[in-house]
Amino acid sequence: MKKNCIVAQSGGPTVAINSAVAGVIKGVLDSAYYDKIYGSIHGIQGVLRNRFLDLSASDDEFIDNLCKSPAMYLGSCRFKLPDYSEDASLYAEIFKVFEGMNIGAFFYVGGNDSMDTVDKLSAYAASIGSDIKIAGIPKTIDNDLELTDHTPGFGSAAKYVAASIREIAYDTYIYDVKSVAIVEIMGRDAGWLTAASALARTEFSAAPHLIYLPERSFDSEQFIEDVRRMLDIHKNVIVAVSEGIHDKDGNYICAGTATEDKFGHAQLSGTGKVLEQLIKDRLGVKVRSIEINVLQRAAAHLAAAQDLKESFMLGKKAVEYTSDGKTGFMTIVKCDRSSEYSFIIDCVPVSEVANKAKPVPDYMINPEGNDVTDAMLDYAKPLIQGEVATNYVDGLPSYPDISHLTHKSQC
Amino acid sequence: MKKNCIVAQSGGPTVAINSAVAGVIKGVLDSAYYDKIYGSIHGIQGVLRNRFLDLSASDDEFIDNLCKSPAMYLGSCRFKLPDYSEDASLYAEIFKVFEGMNIGAFFYVGGNDSMDTVDKLSAYAASIGSDIKIAGIPKTIDNDLELTDHTPGFGSAAKYVAASIREIAYDTYIYDVKSVAIVEIMGRDAGWLTAASALARTEFSAAPHLIYLPERSFDSEQFIEDVRRMLDIHKNVIVAVSEGIHDKDGNYICAGTATEDKFGHAQLSGTGKVLEQLIKDRLGVKVRSIEINVLQRAAAHLAAAQDLKESFMLGKKAVEYTSDGKTGFMTIVKCDRSSEYSFIIDCVPVSEVANKAKPVPDYMINPEGNDVTDAMLDYAKPLIQGEVATNYVDGLPSYPDISHLTHKSQC
Repeated sequence: MKKNCIVAQSGGPTVAINSAVAGVIKGVLDSAYYDKIYGSIHGIQGVLRNRFLDLSASDDEFIDNLCKSPAMYLGSCRFKLPDYSEDASLYAEIFKVFEGMNIGAFFYVGGNDSMDTVDKLSAYAASIGSDIKIAGIPKTIDNDLELTDHTPGFGSAAKYVAASIREIAYDTYIYDVKSVAIVEIMGRDAGWLTAASALARTEFSAAPHLIYLPERSFDSEQFIEDVRRMLDIHKNVIVAVSEGIHDKDGNYICAGTATEDKFGHAQLSGTGKVLEQLIKDRLGVKVRSIEINVLQRAAAHLAAAQDLKESFMLGKKAVEYTSDGKTGFMTIVKCDRSSEYSFIIDCVPVSEVANKAKPVPDYMINPEGNDVTDAMLDYAKPLIQGEVATNYVDGLPSYPDISHLTHKSQC
Repeated sequence: MKKNCIVAQSGGPTVAINSAVAGVIKGVLDSAYYDKIYGSIHGIQGVLRNRFLDLSASDDEFIDNLCKSPAMYLGSCRFKLPDYSEDASLYAEIFKVFEGMNIGAFFYVGGNDSMDTVDKLSAYAASIGSDIKIAGIPKTIDNDLELTDHTPGFGSAAKYVAASIREIAYDTYIYDVKSVAIVEIMGRDAGWLTAASALARTEFSAAPHLIYLPERSFDSEQFIEDVRRMLDIHKNVIVAVSEGIHDKDGNYICAGTATEDKFGHAQLSGTGKVLEQLIKDRLGVKVRSIEINVLQRAAAHLAAAQDLKESFMLGKKAVEYTSDGKTGFMTIVKCDRSSEYSFIIDCVPVSEVANKAKPVPDYMINPEGNDVTDAMLDYAKPLIQGEVATNYVDGLPSYPDISHLTHKSQC
């Protein structure tokens, strides 16, 4: 009897993560090896609560619409499994559900923390001699996963951030008054997305004029000097800054106290507002701060076609790898930029990825730590290419029905 | 000898205001009555500083690209003319430039304050017996100009706001945790744009679940009750709120002290943050605030085609009216929604528009003051229709060269 599969999503949303699910669905439907494909609602928690959508009847139209939709069609969770050596009860419960549903493979789309779950589940499977395959598929707008050239979601978010900076620049240039605009971009510990804002530059617009990443210590006095110098050259200065910038002692620049999420990550906001006040106090010029906020990970109407295509392939290939007997892996993108950009999908042991982070490397940051190098532009440019044919109905983007997520909480 | 024309822009940007300039250019180029068309850089100040762009060689490709570009191609100013009965020196200077350039008509694209300038210049022209025609062309995302069905820029901003609320809703629904998202939308005294966020609703998503406009006094206790009641029905509650909401005594809800611009308007921000803190303190649920900020008036890639088309016509028709001998007017849109939406362009004396504001009428707001009625949806829906074929180059929207605005300040 053919086995069935489960796909689930975890962590923060991107506009490419549904494309990975679409790839898994397509992979299973095309497979001679698997039968049904179920979506687990709210990540691994959906398995524990027995909340599944049967996605086996998905047609090409649904799969195409799913690819182009924002956030997470199957919902998310922030759920950290304990070490099974300490407490195996949840694992036993999960695998009991798997056995009951005749599951052959479980696919988990997510970032670092989700890969921790993939790593633990596959280790547990090995420990009990289960032949259920456990596969990870990467996504994160932060682009901080090891061993893959980049992560799905990053290209689209970078496209949104660069387009927004360009449009903000047009908005800023209109007045004949010196001004500074601080644009705060997501990125807790890695500055990839903020760095990609440099793609906004044109022959006639140098915005963003300054770029600050968490990979370098932030010095307020140097920042004031940088802005002052730029204001000598440009009427309007636009600054791109990661939410996670911190001083040399590691203290975040953002106002107030950072709270922590379940994985111990600081939840930040307000970096732009702090810098706005600093410029106002010290330079006395017109200044505004703009927090791009969740739209950088949710604006599916501005997704990068290249990003969605790669995400789909990462999902589809994961299915093929499991039918070839592989488990405990994460699919990755390998790229060749030597002439025209090209990519292939491969996979690596998930244990080599989980709980690690990849910062922007030194050679992509300028010596002064207030801009990126051409190497960053060469790296990021291929990833934002291509536009998506968004379905517009009555003037607005139309996305799939997600009423299975708008129900009342089960907590 | 044929006369020449000047077009200029003033006030805050919209993504439709360049389309009005394009309409004026096209109107002059098609006219048998006028010769050259000049753009004054930075509004009426460009006339005083003799800073002009000759736009007479504009071809169809440039005009088309101009229509689809954000912000203000000719730059803006916030410049209030004194009463000429008190001080006519600036008027004399302006008309001297007009005479020197053989100007037959001056076109000013802007909002309430800009119509004040049109009103004063046309009254002055009459007082000195000048036959130079002075015409106003409306724009403002706030939609608060009298006598026109709506204003160019509103439809595109409404489309952006509604699309963003929809995408934010998808982002919010993914976690199985009760939460509130407060989305702060522009609108100092008029809530049109916030009201239009209701267009985001779908059969399966009621977001925004609550809508608060400056047309109604804001009561914090009632707000807490509204949110509490919604959280009993919906897992995630999304609130759309105008930046300019205030209590029954007229005090703005936003944090800190509001500063005033040159026209005496309060500059607001922080309303969303104040409500976020209120929900956190009183209801203890997960809450985030999102300020949509300048992108609602700058995101040309999501402009409404209907909006750009009407703006173009408002500019083009203004040229025709002046060649028919009219002066001291503002072009307006008259609409018929009885069956399929249709519009015609007309004009009204600018004195009837200047320095007035049009609030959202009572019948478009629900009795409880926390939502809009179907009448609002019927009004706004036709205005957000149609998508624009944005030029994408290397993955990003490509807009016209504005190096004439990125020069160093002349102040």
